[in-house]
Amino acid sequence: MSGKVAIVGSGLIGRAWAIAFARAGWEVRLWDPVAAAPGRALATIEGLLADLEAQDMLNGATAAAVRARMNPAGTLAGALEGAAWAQENAPEDVAVKRSLWRELDRLAAPATILASSTSAIVPSRFTEDLAGRGRCLVCHPINPPYLVPACELVPAPWTEPATMVLAEQIMRGIGQAPIVMKKELDGFVMNRMQGALLEEAFRLVADGYCSVEDVDIGIRDGLALRWAFMGPFETIDLNAPGGVRDYCERYQQIYARLFPSMQRRVDWSGEVMDVVEAQRRVRLPAEKLQERQRWRDRRLMALLRHRRKAASEIGS
Amino acid sequence: MSGKVAIVGSGLIGRAWAIAFARAGWEVRLWDPVAAAPGRALATIEGLLADLEAQDMLNGATAAAVRARMNPAGTLAGALEGAAWAQENAPEDVAVKRSLWRELDRLAAPATILASSTSAIVPSRFTEDLAGRGRCLVCHPINPPYLVPACELVPAPWTEPATMVLAEQIMRGIGQAPIVMKKELDGFVMNRMQGALLEEAFRLVADGYCSVEDVDIGIRDGLALRWAFMGPFETIDLNAPGGVRDYCERYQQIYARLFPSMQRRVDWSGEVMDVVEAQRRVRLPAEKLQERQRWRDRRLMALLRHRRKAASEIGS
Repeated sequence: MSGKVAIVGSGLIGRAWAIAFARAGWEVRLWDPVAAAPGRALATIEGLLADLEAQDMLNGATAAAVRARMNPAGTLAGALEGAAWAQENAPEDVAVKRSLWRELDRLAAPATILASSTSAIVPSRFTEDLAGRGRCLVCHPINPPYLVPACELVPAPWTEPATMVLAEQIMRGIGQAPIVMKKELDGFVMNRMQGALLEEAFRLVADGYCSVEDVDIGIRDGLALRWAFMGPFETIDLNAPGGVRDYCERYQQIYARLFPSMQRRVDWSGEVMDVVEAQRRVRLPAEKLQERQRWRDRRLMALLRHRRKAASEIGS
Repeated sequence: MSGKVAIVGSGLIGRAWAIAFARAGWEVRLWDPVAAAPGRALATIEGLLADLEAQDMLNGATAAAVRARMNPAGTLAGALEGAAWAQENAPEDVAVKRSLWRELDRLAAPATILASSTSAIVPSRFTEDLAGRGRCLVCHPINPPYLVPACELVPAPWTEPATMVLAEQIMRGIGQAPIVMKKELDGFVMNRMQGALLEEAFRLVADGYCSVEDVDIGIRDGLALRWAFMGPFETIDLNAPGGVRDYCERYQQIYARLFPSMQRRVDWSGEVMDVVEAQRRVRLPAEKLQERQRWRDRRLMALLRHRRKAASEIGS
């Protein structure tokens, strides 16, 4: 399944979605309220595509072939013309979203699915008054979606079930791994789990139990080794002879005992940040942040190639 | 650095430690209150070593060479004779530990470090009254330590700083990645972070927001892809142009808003377990749990080989 997609907002997230759709064969039109932005995005995309081709991350297509599927659109109406999907990537501001979504709903054909990349605003807050609110949802990626498969499909109370079904199919079709939420919730799924873990990490450091690097060791060289190919539920399901119920009956009391000491929130930007920042800057000076981001992207692509190979040789 | 190590308790955890130490060149003596246990452990170890050699997880040594470094000990005193390190792997029962540790402290030479594999008991609870309590600590692995590098070094209030320094050196020497806690805390570091994440995962499923598989997607195909080579602090440090402080100033409000809705604990073994178990058993029937555990172990070894290669080619 492929078709036409409108990328609404052509910054960091919009251009990443453009690559994800075009790689899967979709015809992509990029629009932005700043007229020069789609052209700039396409120039950036050309560099990214060359890297992705070199890293075997284009499903065997050439960078040129993927690039040829993308065009700038001079108007929002032009971008939406004949689109099966519109992906909105505007700033995280409810007023901006409300105004833009009125336009999206007015201009897009009734069958076009309208999806927002927002990470922080539930869809009911900018779709309630729209005539076509049944075809509206959040589709929140982890950036960049052309590398990280997980994305969150979040319905407003009025999003039609058929919209969710089609959205899931389309996301699977372009190679994403969609989380299909049953109802909206602030933070969705991924930021809630990340938040829960980070709250404990900041508490541990603030209370002087361990270092920032110790937290990273515990996840990087410990828990995430299994999480990175199973997730936390399958991990515990395989960690007791009788599966997940057996695991919880054996070990829940350990976790239940810890819960009362997790009720206090530490201000991440408060005193503890001096400790966190100082320890991070010893390991990675500020002037090396950008270089390390490039290292991260290379490691991420290498890990994804490993997963593809392991899934094929050992099973997924 | 290598020497002699006493494995005290030769079950699942003890035999895994035996492999980790022997692979690094240590002379290993296995003892157990059940006289036949060390012999049985060594038979199991032989099978494990053959697999590990085939998977290139023995640092280039042969299974036979590693096996030759291990022997059963007929008495606890014999196991401890000349040992630089004793690793205790008794049941998670304070009374059992207290009694065993009195013997350990009485029999071991003053320079021997005494370490417990306990995951659930802080070291002060079984070392307070010991004459040699300054050389006692917890060294908690994620099983099996010969595959998963992270382990937690946890001092009692009276553990000597020099003991912690030497323990860290010894663990690094056998290829572990030690977390060095500054003071003891129930749950240590890893189970606290795993618990925080699981609490939120169970809440999301119990409240009907998403499925068990959705949670696993969010971690496996989302967050853990970066956590598995960076950890959560380095991940956020690289997720804003100005580093970790910049990240928290930009995004903390999103997480702070979620915190109040994370104060309610769901009983993991309560109603939600019917949902969790049913969904897991659809994906993995109970009779396939063991087969899937073997798949997990192969995938874990493949991931560890990938990390070694990626660290060498791209950097760590």
